[in-house]
Amino acid sequence: MIDLSLLSDGGMGWLDASGPHSDLVLSTRIRLARNLAGRVFGVRNSAGEREEILTEVRAAAEDVEPLDHAMLIRLDQLPQLDRQLLHERHLVSKDIAGLDPASRVRAGSALLVQNDIGVMVNEQDHLRLQGLKSGFALEAAYDGVNDADSELGQRLAFAFHPEFGYLTSCPTNVGTGLRASVLIHLPGLVLTKEISKVLQGLSQVGLTFRGLYGEGSEVVGNYFQLSNQTTLGKSEFDLLDHLGKMVQQVITYEEQARQVLLRDAPSVIEDKVWRAYGLLRYARSLSFEETMNLLSGVRLGVGLSLVPGLSLYALNKLLVHTQPAHLMASDGPGEVSGVEVAIRRAAYVRQTLEEEAGRAA
Amino acid sequence: MIDLSLLSDGGMGWLDASGPHSDLVLSTRIRLARNLAGRVFGVRNSAGEREEILTEVRAAAEDVEPLDHAMLIRLDQLPQLDRQLLHERHLVSKDIAGLDPASRVRAGSALLVQNDIGVMVNEQDHLRLQGLKSGFALEAAYDGVNDADSELGQRLAFAFHPEFGYLTSCPTNVGTGLRASVLIHLPGLVLTKEISKVLQGLSQVGLTFRGLYGEGSEVVGNYFQLSNQTTLGKSEFDLLDHLGKMVQQVITYEEQARQVLLRDAPSVIEDKVWRAYGLLRYARSLSFEETMNLLSGVRLGVGLSLVPGLSLYALNKLLVHTQPAHLMASDGPGEVSGVEVAIRRAAYVRQTLEEEAGRAA
Repeated sequence: MIDLSLLSDGGMGWLDASGPHSDLVLSTRIRLARNLAGRVFGVRNSAGEREEILTEVRAAAEDVEPLDHAMLIRLDQLPQLDRQLLHERHLVSKDIAGLDPASRVRAGSALLVQNDIGVMVNEQDHLRLQGLKSGFALEAAYDGVNDADSELGQRLAFAFHPEFGYLTSCPTNVGTGLRASVLIHLPGLVLTKEISKVLQGLSQVGLTFRGLYGEGSEVVGNYFQLSNQTTLGKSEFDLLDHLGKMVQQVITYEEQARQVLLRDAPSVIEDKVWRAYGLLRYARSLSFEETMNLLSGVRLGVGLSLVPGLSLYALNKLLVHTQPAHLMASDGPGEVSGVEVAIRRAAYVRQTLEEEAGRAA
Repeated sequence: MIDLSLLSDGGMGWLDASGPHSDLVLSTRIRLARNLAGRVFGVRNSAGEREEILTEVRAAAEDVEPLDHAMLIRLDQLPQLDRQLLHERHLVSKDIAGLDPASRVRAGSALLVQNDIGVMVNEQDHLRLQGLKSGFALEAAYDGVNDADSELGQRLAFAFHPEFGYLTSCPTNVGTGLRASVLIHLPGLVLTKEISKVLQGLSQVGLTFRGLYGEGSEVVGNYFQLSNQTTLGKSEFDLLDHLGKMVQQVITYEEQARQVLLRDAPSVIEDKVWRAYGLLRYARSLSFEETMNLLSGVRLGVGLSLVPGLSLYALNKLLVHTQPAHLMASDGPGEVSGVEVAIRRAAYVRQTLEEEAGRAA
């Protein structure tokens, strides 16, 4: 089994709640799609070509400061549980991890990772660089990825068109190849039923939203990934600036919604928050979806200073560690039933909250 | 406001969980209906006659050992909140307390109470003697009431017909005038869906069931009052013996149902019990009905030894103290909204469970 402790912070520095606006924004992610000139795009190339691409990218990475000590994880040589673990830590996409029921992990699929910079090799595009930061930190996340991209670009010939920009496997990524996304917790807007208006407004200004795990994933626990919808015809600076301003606006709306809740229904909110806490603290079986929803309530309570002595870091860790692969792997390898996963999830949550209560006391 | 602390145990000795089978049976109640010969029955008599009856009964009670130090509570001189308090402690019926929306408290309505013996004067019948005991204790409860009845009967001429027995206001009470009832907690039979079969069986052998507060009250929290349906044509001994045997049978069924639950769905039951505990421990607003249902879950957990360090006495006290009048009176007199009652209820429950957890730790 893969040893994730070899990664810096287990690959989870992004959830340490150290970044700006960490009460609302869990993390900021920048992704750049790049392809090698003269090579068939990822969806149509052969296993042999994919292997060559991986060799080429590895060689370039070794010369590049942000990646010269990168750990190589060959996804095509990992069992599914390990690929799922990496996906649950937001280090690889569902696609490259071969987790879709219809797909399998493809030959040459790999992850290079060093600190908070990762490069997926042989995903839909030949390279997908990603940087994850705690909190609302578009600039910092971009700087890290941009640095790695520039350095790699001096050693690898990226497919680039003078008029369109970077060429990518899917036309929606052509141009900058950049997707910037912010994972934000919006229970106030959901509870005040303002959320659909806000999301509609975002789509009108070229932004889109997804669930916790990117494209195709459902919204659970009131966590929304807000990101730019297109990358063509705009500079990286403009894209980030626009997204940044819009997210700042959403943060303001969310804060206003919370004040409305506190003003109009303080006892209802307090009751909701503490019931969620009580269930998480004592339940003996929890589904992932229920856990997310209850954690959302508790996180709102922490944000409103209703629940003392509970750290955002602990809540963020719960988001990752209560996912199926983490729970299945928690007691060593071997088949684990869904019932057992739900029992383990409840035990993990209980233990974490007890530790937090003990720490606070 | 009435000072219930003047009563022995606040009139709540019956819930101290000291009696036999206290985990399942909260209390046993014996009631004897008696009327004075030559006087109009309670429903049709005048205020003046009712006053005379009260004077006569008080005089007799003073000469009688089980009642010679009885406290007299004139219900007709009490505000509604106090009458409701007495009803919530099971010391007076809804009828004599004038709590039905359609009725009012009638002139001369009073309660004489000494230790666990009470006499309602000017209820539907001129006298209703009642004895309440903790747990499953038909004989002990009967002995106390029977003693008071015999002594009073030597000083008062009770309406008695040589063929029918004691005459009462309602024909269903004619004969012995005895109603024996056992308040029993049957979550196992409810969860295994065996309860309707059991209740049907009881009705076929002349027993009936009611909710926590006797006639017309709904079953909440899986608490059932099992009692004899008729009193005519059978001796007191036969009635008690029959009820006792049937209740013993129900206890066995309930214990079997619990074993089935533990065998077939241990993790479901454990989860259910601890979720109930978690909500009671942390909710900030609780309705009476939800409280009863959650307490039922926790009580089941205590019975199955799943929840350590929580006393039956504490759970029994919660049954009484989470009722509306107790909560309304808890912070002195004055109008209290339903929202405030629900908040006070949650606070009281929380405090009790915290104290219990502290005591156990």
